[in-house]
Amino acid sequence: MHILITGAAGMIGRKLTQNLLTTGHLGGAAISRLTLHDLIEPVAPPPASFRVMAVASDFSARENVAALLCDKPDTIFHLAAVVSGEAEDDFDKGYKVNFMGTWHLFEEVRAIQSHITTYRPRLVFASSTGVFGGPYPEQLEDDFIPAPLTSYGTQKAMAELLLSDYTHKGFFDGIGIRLPTICVRPGNPNKAASGFFSSIIREPLVGLEASLPVSEDVRHWHASPRSAVGFLTHAATIDGKAVGPRRTLNMPGVSCTVAEQIEALRLIAGAEVVRRIRRNPDEKIIRMVAGWPRSFNAKRATDLGFKAETNFQEIIRVHIEDELRGGSDIVV
Amino acid sequence: MHILITGAAGMIGRKLTQNLLTTGHLGGAAISRLTLHDLIEPVAPPPASFRVMAVASDFSARENVAALLCDKPDTIFHLAAVVSGEAEDDFDKGYKVNFMGTWHLFEEVRAIQSHITTYRPRLVFASSTGVFGGPYPEQLEDDFIPAPLTSYGTQKAMAELLLSDYTHKGFFDGIGIRLPTICVRPGNPNKAASGFFSSIIREPLVGLEASLPVSEDVRHWHASPRSAVGFLTHAATIDGKAVGPRRTLNMPGVSCTVAEQIEALRLIAGAEVVRRIRRNPDEKIIRMVAGWPRSFNAKRATDLGFKAETNFQEIIRVHIEDELRGGSDIVV
Repeated sequence: MHILITGAAGMIGRKLTQNLLTTGHLGGAAISRLTLHDLIEPVAPPPASFRVMAVASDFSARENVAALLCDKPDTIFHLAAVVSGEAEDDFDKGYKVNFMGTWHLFEEVRAIQSHITTYRPRLVFASSTGVFGGPYPEQLEDDFIPAPLTSYGTQKAMAELLLSDYTHKGFFDGIGIRLPTICVRPGNPNKAASGFFSSIIREPLVGLEASLPVSEDVRHWHASPRSAVGFLTHAATIDGKAVGPRRTLNMPGVSCTVAEQIEALRLIAGAEVVRRIRRNPDEKIIRMVAGWPRSFNAKRATDLGFKAETNFQEIIRVHIEDELRGGSDIVV
Repeated sequence: MHILITGAAGMIGRKLTQNLLTTGHLGGAAISRLTLHDLIEPVAPPPASFRVMAVASDFSARENVAALLCDKPDTIFHLAAVVSGEAEDDFDKGYKVNFMGTWHLFEEVRAIQSHITTYRPRLVFASSTGVFGGPYPEQLEDDFIPAPLTSYGTQKAMAELLLSDYTHKGFFDGIGIRLPTICVRPGNPNKAASGFFSSIIREPLVGLEASLPVSEDVRHWHASPRSAVGFLTHAATIDGKAVGPRRTLNMPGVSCTVAEQIEALRLIAGAEVVRRIRRNPDEKIIRMVAGWPRSFNAKRATDLGFKAETNFQEIIRVHIEDELRGGSDIVV
């Protein structure tokens, strides 16, 4: 099996790559080849029992997309995207990469399929809960209307519509997954407005202070990086017919308040660690977070076998196992 | 006020043109200029007190779209589209006209706006209940999910998303309206699968036989051509702020069964006329119609003042008034 990952240098792309290199198979099929694509060259992967190729190119140029497909990958993980903040700041770039880049990918698969009618890859598209815009009920059902309030969400929602239509027409077998906020995100703090959900856990665990810009009663929707990889590999291997005509699924996750996040941290790491969280209210972030969905009833995905953590302590434990050497790196 | 109509040679475009020529104003503002665009030259309009220009060009070519906007119309009615059947038969053409053509129109408005920041036209986009795909409840609420099962519906749903985003960003003031099936459609029978809803009324009224391909318990969603024009002119003149961030609205209409349509015809024109309807079940049409929504609770649009007929007899009476010289052309 030949696998292509676009956006392979991103956090989830790297975790997915690591998983595929470690297991060597996907859904029971041995991996024969892995193509890793990103704008910057994905980090040199460790030796594997199969061929791994890293490609650095601009995804918004159609010829680069075509080049990625010339060897007809059986499974495509499409993760490449301009992040939400950048899509708002640079209107044209967001549409060029997130929408047109995705459409070009779909069109190039279709172009191959028009010559080789047996070619019908599984295409897993990483979408986002950013397709939603308020007002929201307390919990969103699977058929909640995608009515985005941002350009990023609009680009993802449009790509989801194309994914369904191209799948209905038989050009490929597409499945879109709307990821929760990934928490605890490893690495340095970034500028994403949602970054604090991770940093209030990640920084205190290694002896650093973290800033909390919102009130503790803010509720949000989380899953671990490990769950995100599980969503992607599961989406790559499930029976496409079982998904039905609506090809994008809300992924399961943990809905909890910031207070519950902090309490979970206290139970796992103690009161000293929790004291490293500083309250620094930030009106801009408060306003943005108020526009995000807080909880989902991800029934379709759960019925199809997608699994996430069931409480926030589990999410912290995954972080400790995967990023803090099982706890050896915790600073109490 | 300068008004542009794309797709002006279509049935609704012609009715809208006639309305604007007759009234000479739109929402209280005198019309100073009217530009009528279509692929074929719109029929020569009757003399008017203002300048009327007819333009024939291919809407899918971006330079033609730009040319339509060079004089900065204040109000744009965007009706140009490849119809649903053709969008299914010719995948590329449907996307090229219905989606890319619409996007080019939006981009060209934005391009003007980037130089002339005060330019912010009202843009009325004719969308369709084709954005919906089953399964449906008996009645669709305003927030029912657009999950199209056709390429036509996908193209319209994507254009609706763009309309909202471009409006949020202030590039124009867009309002999308999802029209019911327009009934009684004047003119000759066409090949649209929905055509029989009109022909079983239109043909018998003038002494001709009509074919009914579905069972009489089929329920559907209708509004008259006169209502469609009312929706468009109302959408052009309402307060954009009152619409809120979700810029596309389900229009009101009449939900009734074929049996109720026939009974309304009998009450108005008598049993002889009704006897001209022949039962000719057509499995293909039966299957297609089974996939269409049957009724809407168009609360948002109704609250904003959009009005349709309230029963099917009214719809027939509008047809008689507007197309059959008030009844003189009825053949009993």
